[in-house]
Amino acid sequence: MRLLFLGDVVGKSGRVVVTEKLPGLVADLKIDCVVINGENAAHGFGITEAIYQELLDAGGDCVTLGNHSWDQREALVFIDRAPRLVRPVNYPAGTPGRGAALIETRKGAHVLVVNAMGRVFMDAMDDPFAAVEREIEAAPLGRVADAVVIDIHAEATSEKQAFGHIFDGRASLVVGTHTHVPTADHRVLPGGTAFMTDVGMCGDYDSVIGMDKAEPLRRMREKTPGGKFEPASGPATLSGILVDLGANGLATRVAPLRVGGRLETTIPV
Amino acid sequence: MRLLFLGDVVGKSGRVVVTEKLPGLVADLKIDCVVINGENAAHGFGITEAIYQELLDAGGDCVTLGNHSWDQREALVFIDRAPRLVRPVNYPAGTPGRGAALIETRKGAHVLVVNAMGRVFMDAMDDPFAAVEREIEAAPLGRVADAVVIDIHAEATSEKQAFGHIFDGRASLVVGTHTHVPTADHRVLPGGTAFMTDVGMCGDYDSVIGMDKAEPLRRMREKTPGGKFEPASGPATLSGILVDLGANGLATRVAPLRVGGRLETTIPV
Amino acid sequence: MRLLFLGDVVGKSGRVVVTEKLPGLVADLKIDCVVINGENAAHGFGITEAIYQELLDAGGDCVTLGNHSWDQREALVFIDRAPRLVRPVNYPAGTPGRGAALIETRKGAHVLVVNAMGRVFMDAMDDPFAAVEREIEAAPLGRVADAVVIDIHAEATSEKQAFGHIFDGRASLVVGTHTHVPTADHRVLPGGTAFMTDVGMCGDYDSVIGMDKAEPLRRMREKTPGGKFEPASGPATLSGILVDLGANGLATRVAPLRVGGRLETTIPV
Amino acid sequence: MRLLFLGDVVGKSGRVVVTEKLPGLVADLKIDCVVINGENAAHGFGITEAIYQELLDAGGDCVTLGNHSWDQREALVFIDRAPRLVRPVNYPAGTPGRGAALIETRKGAHVLVVNAMGRVFMDAMDDPFAAVEREIEAAPLGRVADAVVIDIHAEATSEKQAFGHIFDGRASLVVGTHTHVPTADHRVLPGGTAFMTDVGMCGDYDSVIGMDKAEPLRRMREKTPGGKFEPASGPATLSGILVDLGANGLATRVAPLRVGGRLETTIPV
Ligand SMILES: [Fe+2]
Ligand SMILES: [Fe+2]
Ligand SMILES: [Fe+2]
Ligand SMILES: [Fe+2]
Ligand SMILES: [Fe+2]
Ligand SMILES: [Fe+2]
Ligand SMILES: [Fe+2]
Ligand SMILES: [Fe+2]
Repeated sequence: MRLLFLGDVVGKSGRVVVTEKLPGLVADLKIDCVVINGENAAHGFGITEAIYQELLDAGGDCVTLGNHSWDQREALVFIDRAPRLVRPVNYPAGTPGRGAALIETRKGAHVLVVNAMGRVFMDAMDDPFAAVEREIEAAPLGRVADAVVIDIHAEATSEKQAFGHIFDGRASLVVGTHTHVPTADHRVLPGGTAFMTDVGMCGDYDSVIGMDKAEPLRRMREKTPGGKFEPASGPATLSGILVDLGANGLATRVAPLRVGGRLETTIPV
Repeated sequence: MRLLFLGDVVGKSGRVVVTEKLPGLVADLKIDCVVINGENAAHGFGITEAIYQELLDAGGDCVTLGNHSWDQREALVFIDRAPRLVRPVNYPAGTPGRGAALIETRKGAHVLVVNAMGRVFMDAMDDPFAAVEREIEAAPLGRVADAVVIDIHAEATSEKQAFGHIFDGRASLVVGTHTHVPTADHRVLPGGTAFMTDVGMCGDYDSVIGMDKAEPLRRMREKTPGGKFEPASGPATLSGILVDLGANGLATRVAPLRVGGRLETTIPV
Repeated sequence: MRLLFLGDVVGKSGRVVVTEKLPGLVADLKIDCVVINGENAAHGFGITEAIYQELLDAGGDCVTLGNHSWDQREALVFIDRAPRLVRPVNYPAGTPGRGAALIETRKGAHVLVVNAMGRVFMDAMDDPFAAVEREIEAAPLGRVADAVVIDIHAEATSEKQAFGHIFDGRASLVVGTHTHVPTADHRVLPGGTAFMTDVGMCGDYDSVIGMDKAEPLRRMREKTPGGKFEPASGPATLSGILVDLGANGLATRVAPLRVGGRLETTIPV
Repeated sequence: MRLLFLGDVVGKSGRVVVTEKLPGLVADLKIDCVVINGENAAHGFGITEAIYQELLDAGGDCVTLGNHSWDQREALVFIDRAPRLVRPVNYPAGTPGRGAALIETRKGAHVLVVNAMGRVFMDAMDDPFAAVEREIEAAPLGRVADAVVIDIHAEATSEKQAFGHIFDGRASLVVGTHTHVPTADHRVLPGGTAFMTDVGMCGDYDSVIGMDKAEPLRRMREKTPGGKFEPASGPATLSGILVDLGANGLATRVAPLRVGGRLETTIPV
């Protein structure tokens, strides 16, 4: 099986690169399952039902979220009728939606997708390690799930790397999101889990983490309020990670995939 | 001119990869100036005078620091007799050492190296933007300095990217350090400044940001104190960024350089 | 001379208790100078020009601010024509307004009021100790200023206490604001400076730090967005600290002053 | 029933004031149950078994902890044979010790003591509200427990006040610890729960939160490492809150109790 994970889609520019490029990539690269982080898809903040559908229509099998999950309030409602939308699993009990989903791909494989939120330099949440542990135990790789994808949405590189090591051998892929910059440390860990500290964003990199530069640059120096933060609108880079799995659901190969915009193009052959 | 910047050297493993590989790389790639972040060179925490000398002997023209500057107390003393050692410029007035240095390379070029510490998710420091502004104005690129290298030692990707944009056109290179993971967003910004959100560490990547995995993995889940943090001792990756400059000191080309250890090898041709 | 400092006025309820009680207290207790923290006076967030004037009309000689200084954008403009309005001194150079003011009281005494913002658990700012040091040196107690009042707007008790000790003997009063809860540690420090870790708010204490309880209680447990934060509208407590000064401008006596609302009434005799 | 809660005992000076004053106060004020926060009792950092015993011998019925629980490693071991020692309830499953205890007083009453750690500006922990909720439900006030005492060890005043309101009517006392400064907002909440945002420390207030002043004052300005933090050794203030309960276990009266050292003496009559 071949998996593709795409990082945080930021605003219209990010959505455009996904809808324009993803269908061709899925066909050309014979990708079996696509997971997309969509927490910034709606003008940089959250996700709407229409955009969720747009990401599925473009080829997404599952959409994950993060600290921006509820920036668009409608997500609190439509998530309950959106079975392929996954929010961080370590929200409090009673939070709308689900933190993990067993997704059936077009070819009938079952992929467990879990989303978790880190706690270092982030809002107070329950233990993400324990929460993911419970989901993995409920649908173990090789028995219930043909593949397991963990999106660890976190700020600190240390916390994300700990996630990789702790679930090494029990997940097909542990990938970080949230910092909006791809890291160059993609590799298969000793136990067979593909890992990358952060997959980067699908957005315009001539920006401050996807946002138009002017206001963040001013605010960091001046410390006064000003205009709103708006997504940058230049050409976006689609930024993802491609993973090939063996019959046991563990990774045999991992490679970055980056197309368009300001970053160097990288297409696995 | 051709510059090489190497990220945070972590412990013995990191020093070994630098001393073994750097001399050959300098010769083969005809590198004119090497700047090395050494804040974790002494068993993961700070730097000693002997290690500072070791990094210069291996080919370093200048060594920068960060939040671990003073972990080895002797640094507070020997820094004043170490003209090529630069600590963050936005420490309070009266701090030992210097926050910027105009380094003469073997071929007689003058390179201004500035080190600054970010403030987002880090300790309280004075404004790094204003502090670097002052140093740049005192030794402007193209007039006093043949090249300007800014090491922004920071946690948040947003703050580092803001540094790149704000000094674009006035520095040869703005490069982030501190997170110990190389990013894949190296590029020349519109104004001619080479940029990379984080250059990664020179250390063993089979680790949690360069430290032996066992204790951090335990502590993140158990929240009890335990053993000391020790650098991981497996083979290290040398992780850097190579920049070619035009006659005006601005970048004409940028490329990552990674050799050894667990990461994919990348050597610019 | 007798000084009164009133803590963060929160919303209408806080303004009402100040306008209703302050004139009588000034008369009855023969108070010479009143400084009021007004950062939450406008519906909990910032201050308007009309409210600034209302606080002066009620008997205030000077109004200080904090991290909410600019929540009402008009403050960025009117502060430059509001000589008795003081914002934190450690904002970046170029910030509208002033961080210190030498205020003339009705009886012709000169009171230096300095406002500073802490950095522990707060936004990144320049060194508040160094910034206040400069203001104190420019208008020293006993030479230029008849009294010196320092409002240290900070979260951490440690940082506020450090302020008290560092300026002990050089200020008439060092008083903390920002946590919206009065502390019971008012005292005259060995060098003659009156000190209180936090003076508390002028607001409705049947609340979460002055805000209507319902939404903060929900949000702390549920971690989803919801209604806006609104000031609590029940009867407010006026919460202040009264300081008597000797001829040298140092404190001879300090006492809390609390009237109205939910807290125990304390009126110095 | 009459309860006394004493705030964080800091070092030898804090222990001396407790052992010297507590027995007399218990006798004179006819106190039925004493709970003491002991997280800083061992030279400012953690607790030893000998000191735990010393606090019980002085009259304590129960000792609570906080973020410094394990600073003395022996606490990880002896806590399992120390039935009256309670650490924060929202540590991960598997943490030594207990987060709540049903203590039998000398007169045979049963007092449920729960300790919880806040998450705002503190280390990542599981939800303290949910964790306390579970303990309260297991031993409800008026049915299983004759009194319920909640020690919320937290930095932010907002989080502590939320605790008070959420458990109002279901606890005899919700009291904050950790900031080492007593607040002046003690009161009985509408539902019958005694509340105080922070009870302050039993320690020397001529200090920075109980620590000798010199090193913290230097370090806040100089940002370089230096000497160790040592508890201040001047005369300490015993700082507590006294609560009278009706037959239903709810509060009928609350008053601060402060004796000795630098703070104003307050003894309820
Ligand atoms: Fe994002
Ligand atoms: Fe995010
Ligand atoms: Fe480092
Ligand atoms: Fe660092
Ligand atoms: Fe305030
Ligand atoms: Fe504030
Ligand atoms: Fe404490
Ligand atoms: Fe504490």
